[in-house]
Amino acid sequence: MASKQEIEEAAARVAPYVRTTPVIAVRGLTLKLELMQHTGSFKPRGAFNRILSHAVPEVGVIAASGGNHGLAVAYAARRLGLRAEVFLPTITSPVKVERLRGYGATVTQIGDRYADALEASLERAEQTGALAVHAYDQPEVQAGQGTLARELQSQCPDLDTILVAVGGGGLFTGVASWYTGAAKLVAVEPRTIPTLASAIKAGEPVDVKVSGVAADSLGARRIARAALDVAVTSGAESVLVEDADIIEARRLLWDELRITAEAGGATALAAVISGVYKPEPGERVGVIVCGGNTDPTDLM
Amino acid sequence: MASKQEIEEAAARVAPYVRTTPVIAVRGLTLKLELMQHTGSFKPRGAFNRILSHAVPEVGVIAASGGNHGLAVAYAARRLGLRAEVFLPTITSPVKVERLRGYGATVTQIGDRYADALEASLERAEQTGALAVHAYDQPEVQAGQGTLARELQSQCPDLDTILVAVGGGGLFTGVASWYTGAAKLVAVEPRTIPTLASAIKAGEPVDVKVSGVAADSLGARRIARAALDVAVTSGAESVLVEDADIIEARRLLWDELRITAEAGGATALAAVISGVYKPEPGERVGVIVCGGNTDPTDLM
Repeated sequence: MASKQEIEEAAARVAPYVRTTPVIAVRGLTLKLELMQHTGSFKPRGAFNRILSHAVPEVGVIAASGGNHGLAVAYAARRLGLRAEVFLPTITSPVKVERLRGYGATVTQIGDRYADALEASLERAEQTGALAVHAYDQPEVQAGQGTLARELQSQCPDLDTILVAVGGGGLFTGVASWYTGAAKLVAVEPRTIPTLASAIKAGEPVDVKVSGVAADSLGARRIARAALDVAVTSGAESVLVEDADIIEARRLLWDELRITAEAGGATALAAVISGVYKPEPGERVGVIVCGGNTDPTDLM
Repeated sequence: MASKQEIEEAAARVAPYVRTTPVIAVRGLTLKLELMQHTGSFKPRGAFNRILSHAVPEVGVIAASGGNHGLAVAYAARRLGLRAEVFLPTITSPVKVERLRGYGATVTQIGDRYADALEASLERAEQTGALAVHAYDQPEVQAGQGTLARELQSQCPDLDTILVAVGGGGLFTGVASWYTGAAKLVAVEPRTIPTLASAIKAGEPVDVKVSGVAADSLGARRIARAALDVAVTSGAESVLVEDADIIEARRLLWDELRITAEAGGATALAAVISGVYKPEPGERVGVIVCGGNTDPTDLM
């Protein structure tokens, strides 16, 4: 897990480059609207922290991504005057691919799943010597994502419970590290991608099958070790939601707020909508809406 | 104009029913994301204040609207257990008509323009005795809209300048009344609906032709007298923007924040994007994004 000190240092490092994203109270919940972050997800927090923690070679940075992390790395590289190469699986939504090229990154689409793109990117990184920026399984990336939790706590100091979606576990590791001992953590996963739930059951990270509506943002095959560790340390509750609940959560965010969360971005909220997580009376619940790189036409 | 006292009283009255909407810093501007208000625009602030200031007869409330005000009146009526009748012109976007029926209001679409719907609603109100809630030309409505400015000032006390879109002038009256003497006001109108600019030129409210992309939310034919008065009193700057700039502002809000402002909601921002209003270096500018009832498919 990340230490508070590491998250504080990350916050100082990334402050010039990331937005403070707003919170809003809706139906008794506090929503953290991180989909308004640069590039449309929380990912720049971790990408900037990783890149700014290292001397970057002339050849630049390299990443594999379901899409959002790639956008963040490409954005960070552009802001910092670096070259970026990004590997994506073919399932990445066209919205993300188009935006990525817009940031000037060299894009390669390969394989059906994030894991295929990761493998290709690691081979390529060995050839070129570029700085690899992992989507979730590096301490600087996890500490960077933890800055979201630090920011949320400063905005709403009284939250009892934090709901956060889990894919590879980078955001979860950062958020749970920050909030351990200060709030209850609820780790929400689509039933079709139960990386954390499976790891908790097995006692170690294991491969899972990846499918469903949130696969392009939460579709890691295996959770980061650090995420499992902090889930145990923090006593986090692990819950699973159905794709239909995720779709309903997206629609609620649209109907109530005129914002367009992507499926992964609406997954944490789906746990409340569906009743899979039932807050106690008076429980102050924060829900992280972590990404919005989606085509909104299916909301109409 | 509304007095500070009237706006304070309105704020206390509507507090249980309206959301505190967030602000976010984007490109050096402070955006007030009022499109996240209930019903997707600022209008509930004024509607609740008007309705809660009066004893409402059994027959309920009645309003004419380009759409957003009707939604707000219907929403307020539902929350307060009252009946609502709403008259709309035929140009009202289908998105709004559909939502309006969803709130349980009796809907009549009549005529090409807001003014036609208004006339029909006034006739009907005389027959039924329902409480008329005007879209912009009643003191309680204007004071209610002023609560947005009070809220914004509490969130960002240091703003030098406030940009606000003008249609009939209800929001402008409330906002300018609150900020007179505390910040510079910039009243932004589409060139195709210059109700305030024409009134300033003529020295009194005059009819204008209504057209363009923002007609369904800013499409009043004549500005409220109070709006002209407070424009003069506050020394507000009146500027006009092109439809193309409004469209570009909508796209920027989508690209940067994954929010879908309607054309009227993006009109204030269009003044900065287009360079029609050029902030001085260091000038702290607040921009009200006042509505989001739109079909987002044209953003893709």
